[in-house]
Amino acid sequence: MITKIEGGVCAPKGFRANGVHCGIRKNKIKKDLALIVSDVRCATACVYTTNLVKGAPILVTKKNVADGYAQAVIVNSGNANTCNANGVEIAEEMCALVERHTGVAAGDVVVASTGVIGQQLSIEPIANGMQELVAGLGNNSSAAAEAIMTTDTVKKEIAYSFEIGGVPCKIGAICKGVGMICPNMATMLMFISTDAAVSPAMLQKALSADVKDSLNMLSVDRDTSTNDTLCIMASGLAGNKEIVSAGADYKRFCKALHMVTSAMCRELAADGEGATKLVECRVRGAKSKKCARIAAKSVINSNLVKAAMFGSDANWGRVLCALGYAGADLDVNKIDVRFTSAAGEVFVCENGSGVPFSEEEAKRVLSQKEVVIDVDLKDGAYSATAWGCDLTYDYVKINGDYRT
Amino acid sequence: MITKIEGGVCAPKGFRANGVHCGIRKNKIKKDLALIVSDVRCATACVYTTNLVKGAPILVTKKNVADGYAQAVIVNSGNANTCNANGVEIAEEMCALVERHTGVAAGDVVVASTGVIGQQLSIEPIANGMQELVAGLGNNSSAAAEAIMTTDTVKKEIAYSFEIGGVPCKIGAICKGVGMICPNMATMLMFISTDAAVSPAMLQKALSADVKDSLNMLSVDRDTSTNDTLCIMASGLAGNKEIVSAGADYKRFCKALHMVTSAMCRELAADGEGATKLVECRVRGAKSKKCARIAAKSVINSNLVKAAMFGSDANWGRVLCALGYAGADLDVNKIDVRFTSAAGEVFVCENGSGVPFSEEEAKRVLSQKEVVIDVDLKDGAYSATAWGCDLTYDYVKINGDYRT
Repeated sequence: MITKIEGGVCAPKGFRANGVHCGIRKNKIKKDLALIVSDVRCATACVYTTNLVKGAPILVTKKNVADGYAQAVIVNSGNANTCNANGVEIAEEMCALVERHTGVAAGDVVVASTGVIGQQLSIEPIANGMQELVAGLGNNSSAAAEAIMTTDTVKKEIAYSFEIGGVPCKIGAICKGVGMICPNMATMLMFISTDAAVSPAMLQKALSADVKDSLNMLSVDRDTSTNDTLCIMASGLAGNKEIVSAGADYKRFCKALHMVTSAMCRELAADGEGATKLVECRVRGAKSKKCARIAAKSVINSNLVKAAMFGSDANWGRVLCALGYAGADLDVNKIDVRFTSAAGEVFVCENGSGVPFSEEEAKRVLSQKEVVIDVDLKDGAYSATAWGCDLTYDYVKINGDYRT
Repeated sequence: MITKIEGGVCAPKGFRANGVHCGIRKNKIKKDLALIVSDVRCATACVYTTNLVKGAPILVTKKNVADGYAQAVIVNSGNANTCNANGVEIAEEMCALVERHTGVAAGDVVVASTGVIGQQLSIEPIANGMQELVAGLGNNSSAAAEAIMTTDTVKKEIAYSFEIGGVPCKIGAICKGVGMICPNMATMLMFISTDAAVSPAMLQKALSADVKDSLNMLSVDRDTSTNDTLCIMASGLAGNKEIVSAGADYKRFCKALHMVTSAMCRELAADGEGATKLVECRVRGAKSKKCARIAAKSVINSNLVKAAMFGSDANWGRVLCALGYAGADLDVNKIDVRFTSAAGEVFVCENGSGVPFSEEEAKRVLSQKEVVIDVDLKDGAYSATAWGCDLTYDYVKINGDYRT
C-alpha cells in the first residue's frame, strides 16, 4: 500500500530543509534560496536537460554526483546562472558555502539555479543568506519549495509512505517549473528524497526509466529548459535491505517513485504559465509504447489544441491534425476521440471522421479545471499519458515581459 | 533581371481567375469559392502536407496531376473537407462541376479546401455558385486571392517578369494561410502560375528543391496543417525553349520561383494569426545547410522567443535555449546573437555569454514591424533564414474560439 503523507521532501528519515530570502530577487517577500541536507551521505541519481546550452550548476552537479553519492542540495531562484562566463565558478562557490556552513563536503553538494538566463549571478547575497538558511534547517520542506518557485503560482511538494520487505519507507519531493517546460530527461527542478536503501546504480536505473513516462511526458510550452535537473537522494535510514538488483523490492520502489513523479507532473502542468486548466492526453491502442508517447505528446504540444482548450472549444480536428503530424506510426482512419472531465464524456470522432455531438454538452465537459483528451488508435495494445495545459492570454503576458 | 509586376496569378499568359461568395460561409461579404483556369493544359507540379491526416481534396488532386498536367484550380474556403467520410466524393464533384461549366476535363483539375476540419462540406452552394464564378473569369487574381482567405487579414498575391533565353516570361501566385502554419513540404495553399515552358519533371524538381528554403522555413505555430497544397502550373505560352534539363535556363527559372515563394513566406509570416510583427531568424556560420535550417527554425518556433518578440523584450537567453534544444550540431560557446531592424542593431550575446547592452536601445530595435534575430554560429560556412511572427493575445483569442 502506498499512502499519501505530509512533510514533502522532509518526510523521509534524515532530511532537513529550509528556504529564505537572501536578496537575489528584488521582491523581499519572495524566498530565493533553498537548502536540503541529509544527516548521512545518500545514494544519489540525477537526470538533466538534453539542451546543448546547459546551466553552469548542472556541470558542477554532474561532477559532484559522479561517485553516486551526495548529502546536500542548494538552489537559488531569480537567476539561472546560465550563459555567464563565470557561471561554473559561482556554482562552485555555492557548494563551498554549503561546506563552510554545514560541514557537508563541497563535493557532495547538488547545486541548481533557476530564473533569467544570461545575467551574472552575484555570490554575495547567497553568502549573506547562508547563516539564516542553515539556522532554520528542520522540517521546512514548504519553505524550500517556496524558495525555488519562479513564475509558479503554488508551491509543489508531495510525500508517500510505502513498504519494502515489510519495512516502512518514505519518499518525498519538491519541485518547480511552469514555463520553458518540455523536459527531455527531466523537468525544470525536482528534488526527491527517500529513506529507502537503494544502491546508486539501481537508483539511477529507476530514475532514468521513470522519466520516460513521467517528466518526459510533460510539456507547458515545448521549450526545453537549459537548467532541468531531477535529483533523487536515498538516505537508507528506513532500514530496509538495500536494493541492489531488479526484483520485487525494486518494483515496489519504482511504483512509489512513479506515484511521486506523476503527481508532480500533474501539478506542474496545472500550474503551467497562464494556465486555466490541466489538459491530459491519454493515447491507447497504439502499435508500440513509443508510438503512444509520441502521439500523446504531439497533442499536448499543439498551440492550436491548447488555445481550443482555453476556449472550451471541442475542436477535435486539431487533435487529429496533431496526431497526423506527430511522426508516429498510426492509421488515421481508425482513430476515435473523446473529451472527458468530471462533468462527463463527449464522443466526437470515430474512425477518423466526425460524429454528431452536442456543442453545449461539449462546452460543459471542457469547462472543467481538468480535461482529458482520450485517443484510441485501435491499432495495438500500448498506451501513454501526457500532461500539459491550455494556452492563454496570461501565458503571452507573462512571457512578453518576463525579465522586467 | 527579375521585375515585380502587377496581376498576381493572372499575370502570366493564358491564366484567368475569379472568386465569389457562394454560401459556404455565413458571412455574405466574404468570398468563399475561387477558380483559376488556363487556356491550355499546363505542366503541373505540386507538393503537399506531410501530415498523415490529409484533406480529401489532396487525394483527388494527387490523382489528377499524376500525369504531370492540369488546366484548372478550384478552391473553397470556410471548410477544409477533411476528416469527413464523404470527403473524396465531394472533392470529385467539385472537379466535375469545373468540367461541366468550363469544359476543362475533371481529371485536369486541382482541387483544394481550407477551413474547419471535420464538418461535412455540402456541394450545393458550390454548384449554385459556379455560373457566377465562371462568368467572371478574367484578370481577377485579387478576387481569387480573397476567396481563399480564412483568418488572413490581407490577401496575398505577387508577380514577377523575367527572361529565359531572351524570351520574356512571367510568374505569379496567390496564397493564404496564417494559422496551423508549419509547412512540411508546402504551406496551407499557394497557387503559382507561369507562362514559361518547363517540362513537368523539371517543374517538380524546381518546386521540391525550392520549398526547402522557402515554405519549409516558415512557421506561425508549429502546427502542420492537414491541407497544405502548393501547386505550380506552367502554360508555356511565353514561347521560350522548353526547359527539360538542369542548366542556365533552369537556374534562371528557379531564381524567379524563389523570388515568388520567399516573398510570399514573408507575407504569410507577417500576417500570422494575431501577429504584430514579422520575425526573421538568420543563422550563419553553420557546419551544414541542414544545421542552419534546423537552428533557424527552432528559434522561430519557440513560444518563449515569440512572446518576447511581442513584448519587444531582448530576452536573448531564450534564443540560446532554442538553439540548444534544436537538435543541430553546434558549439554553444561560439554563438553570437544580434537583434536588428530598421531602427538599428543591438549586439546581445558573444561566444554564448551575455554582453552589456542598452535595454532602451534594444526596445527601440525590437519595436519595429520587422525584426531580425541574427545568429552567427561561427562554426562553418552555411546559412539559412526562417520566418515567423510573434505570439500575441490575439493568437490565443482567434484560436480559443475558431469554430463559432
